[in-house]
Amino acid sequence: MATFVPPVRQENPYLPFGDHRSAPFYGRDILSVKQFSRQDLDYIFGVALEMREMVQRIGTFDLLKGKILVNLFYEPSTRTSSSFTSAMERLGGSVIPINEVRFSSVAKGESLPDTVRTLECYADLIVLRHPEVGASALAAQYARKPIINAGDGVGEHPTQALLDLFTILAELGRVDGLTVTMLGDLKYGRTVHSLARLLSLYQVRLNYVSPEVLRMPPEIIAELNENSIPQAEYSTLDAPLPESDVLYVTRIQNERIEDKTVYERVNGAYVITPETLKAAKDEMIVMHPLPRVGEISMEVDNDPRAAYFRQMEYGLYVRMALLALVLGKA
Amino acid sequence: MATFVPPVRQENPYLPFGDHRSAPFYGRDILSVKQFSRQDLDYIFGVALEMREMVQRIGTFDLLKGKILVNLFYEPSTRTSSSFTSAMERLGGSVIPINEVRFSSVAKGESLPDTVRTLECYADLIVLRHPEVGASALAAQYARKPIINAGDGVGEHPTQALLDLFTILAELGRVDGLTVTMLGDLKYGRTVHSLARLLSLYQVRLNYVSPEVLRMPPEIIAELNENSIPQAEYSTLDAPLPESDVLYVTRIQNERIEDKTVYERVNGAYVITPETLKAAKDEMIVMHPLPRVGEISMEVDNDPRAAYFRQMEYGLYVRMALLALVLGKA
Amino acid sequence: MATFVPPVRQENPYLPFGDHRSAPFYGRDILSVKQFSRQDLDYIFGVALEMREMVQRIGTFDLLKGKILVNLFYEPSTRTSSSFTSAMERLGGSVIPINEVRFSSVAKGESLPDTVRTLECYADLIVLRHPEVGASALAAQYARKPIINAGDGVGEHPTQALLDLFTILAELGRVDGLTVTMLGDLKYGRTVHSLARLLSLYQVRLNYVSPEVLRMPPEIIAELNENSIPQAEYSTLDAPLPESDVLYVTRIQNERIEDKTVYERVNGAYVITPETLKAAKDEMIVMHPLPRVGEISMEVDNDPRAAYFRQMEYGLYVRMALLALVLGKA
Repeated sequence: MATFVPPVRQENPYLPFGDHRSAPFYGRDILSVKQFSRQDLDYIFGVALEMREMVQRIGTFDLLKGKILVNLFYEPSTRTSSSFTSAMERLGGSVIPINEVRFSSVAKGESLPDTVRTLECYADLIVLRHPEVGASALAAQYARKPIINAGDGVGEHPTQALLDLFTILAELGRVDGLTVTMLGDLKYGRTVHSLARLLSLYQVRLNYVSPEVLRMPPEIIAELNENSIPQAEYSTLDAPLPESDVLYVTRIQNERIEDKTVYERVNGAYVITPETLKAAKDEMIVMHPLPRVGEISMEVDNDPRAAYFRQMEYGLYVRMALLALVLGKA
Repeated sequence: MATFVPPVRQENPYLPFGDHRSAPFYGRDILSVKQFSRQDLDYIFGVALEMREMVQRIGTFDLLKGKILVNLFYEPSTRTSSSFTSAMERLGGSVIPINEVRFSSVAKGESLPDTVRTLECYADLIVLRHPEVGASALAAQYARKPIINAGDGVGEHPTQALLDLFTILAELGRVDGLTVTMLGDLKYGRTVHSLARLLSLYQVRLNYVSPEVLRMPPEIIAELNENSIPQAEYSTLDAPLPESDVLYVTRIQNERIEDKTVYERVNGAYVITPETLKAAKDEMIVMHPLPRVGEISMEVDNDPRAAYFRQMEYGLYVRMALLALVLGKA
Repeated sequence: MATFVPPVRQENPYLPFGDHRSAPFYGRDILSVKQFSRQDLDYIFGVALEMREMVQRIGTFDLLKGKILVNLFYEPSTRTSSSFTSAMERLGGSVIPINEVRFSSVAKGESLPDTVRTLECYADLIVLRHPEVGASALAAQYARKPIINAGDGVGEHPTQALLDLFTILAELGRVDGLTVTMLGDLKYGRTVHSLARLLSLYQVRLNYVSPEVLRMPPEIIAELNENSIPQAEYSTLDAPLPESDVLYVTRIQNERIEDKTVYERVNGAYVITPETLKAAKDEMIVMHPLPRVGEISMEVDNDPRAAYFRQMEYGLYVRMALLALVLGKA
């Protein structure tokens, strides 16, 4: 029998060769939009642009060959998990998909810290979707490997906000000087909250168009006021549309409005059609986090201003960039 | 910050290098058996034979390295999805498995065209299984990337029909001149309908053996008559079996026959046993789309004529061929 | 049209080149701990140590490039399936995950032998989890490709026992001469039964600490007596703890004890805390098959003796070793 040498109990046995540690983001968690400076965003988006170029030219490359990502989804989100899976696979890495945490033995009373500390033994980083606010931060507190927050309840979904911002940059070439109009449910949509926060790092004007009961929360408005961001609220799109460079549409969820006659009236009033877009700039882009359920009519899809499917593709590049950065390979 | 150049809005940003476009099937959808000429079949099966040789010799190769397939299954089909997954992985490509569409956010009221246009951002082609007839054609109408129909309700399942035909060719060396006997539920089985259509491109004789209530639909018989295919119907296997080169067995589903005493009698009468096969040719092959539930006794499995497990393996080669052809790499 | 040559019906068309057949374990099934001699264990653990070194140095390598594993799970076990997935991916191979057998067409009345003979057409080996004792042995009887038992009901889970033993070896450098104390539910835990059997191949002392109703089964004790293994039973940890080199903790499941007041008392009495460990050796290790639900307090996690998360990692190396050995590539 070979003699067995007791292992050195090092903190992270997977430290790669080379001096990757000087790289920004290497080994860091991605938990909140609040962690990014404008310089950070420039850096991430620069890498994302390179990813786009590489995907369009050669489709794939082996930057993350041999790396393994755990997609740990406590609630289903096909769109987000598929996007991360594709990002990892386009970079030559592999994915362990864990989509049914609710039904699995992992869930049988095991704490999130234990689950994360088990799964990180099998992987190089963990993408975590969880219904509870703060779950990703808790996981990151215990994990040796990086955690990427892919949505924690009504909390944050930072990679969505990053891809939204990257879409604006990639489509319009800049963010400074733009007027961004957000439409629909601005009260409960974590998407628009996070995007508004990121936009406040730039010189933008923000318009909020929503029914009375679904207005942007005062604390967000106050937060952006501190950054001297001009903000204006409207109940219809008429006034702000012609000056908008970006129209960000969100869904008004049935269950958010108790009075159903109010819902019917309100919902119909916020549907984007080819007719709506007649009043918009030729270079404006229409965005939507998807899925849509009628807020934008399908006839708009062929308008070159309809950017929402391209938005999905930009998401791929942003997530590729984040994976490469966090794993020290960008 | 790097300056951002607005992207050219090209139709397909993933166009590969080289002149793959002259290749037949490159970029085409696989939706129906009706789209194939005999020349097409020869071409596909030629590639499938090469795939078999390569798998048997070296196991795997990197023809589709870096390519990503989305396996979009709106209803479960482990057999079919596993077969496509294996085909993609044997060719060095990757798979995004989406098996629980019903429970996922994708399904929350989102239309099939939207789902497909989202997922194609992450992949190079989509394999679609859907309970509704025409779903694949609808998807293909909106998608920029190729769609492969992996079954749309009672509609079509073209890759199953192709693998059935390839099994006959690979096992018996030819199709022209053969007598093919189909047994069981010929009324509701989309498998036998599609295979009959493909066989009508060759010079074959077809025998249909079924209970009265599960006879081959008249429109299929009429269609094949136009191609001058000799067809004969029987209620028992006795007469056609000795002359058959292929015996294609299907399952009679309990729920198809209302009168349960009829079901009991009928079902038992169509079970293949070693005794049955005594009257068959030595070179005949027994096929079944699987799963079987008693239509062929397990004692038949060791008879060299039992081709149904080999049939599964031929399916792998046919799907490898289709993936390579559609992605312009064959 | 190309002429089609009927295939030679060889038993296993995937035989690799080279003389791998002289390699032990090549092509063998892994069904039970009873199949291993001490020499076998030395060999497997030697390969597992090499796997650890390679993962820690370079992360991944292409030993099983092009090989495909089917993870066939008839009941969910995220931990085990993720571990095998990671093992296969770290070796450059691919995985077909089949996690929802219950809901799939595979399950619609199809027998296990048929399912296995279908899926092996798409893969090089099958990892099988099944709720029924003997399922893996049945599968192995019909399959041409190797089967690895990943748990068959209250039967066996041999790779768990192997990783438990490997943890002891890798942490303490030897097994001979050690005192191993097992704590908790020793009656129903297949984990401790299998580990006890493997340990009986070495010169060890075993202590069993459990409530009266959950004692180690007499047949296991008798079996180990035949190997002259010193065994002692206790109702509390006080006496055996100070002399223990390994403390193996298991969960007491609520439903195993009918009298709930007994459960409350018993369960609390077997919780490991920092206070408990004051009486233990400095070099002792605490193990647990996980998930834990309170049997070990989280305050113990930072004690260097807490080996249960490292245990998960050793599981990866053992499974990598098994995959490589069974596929003839170690």
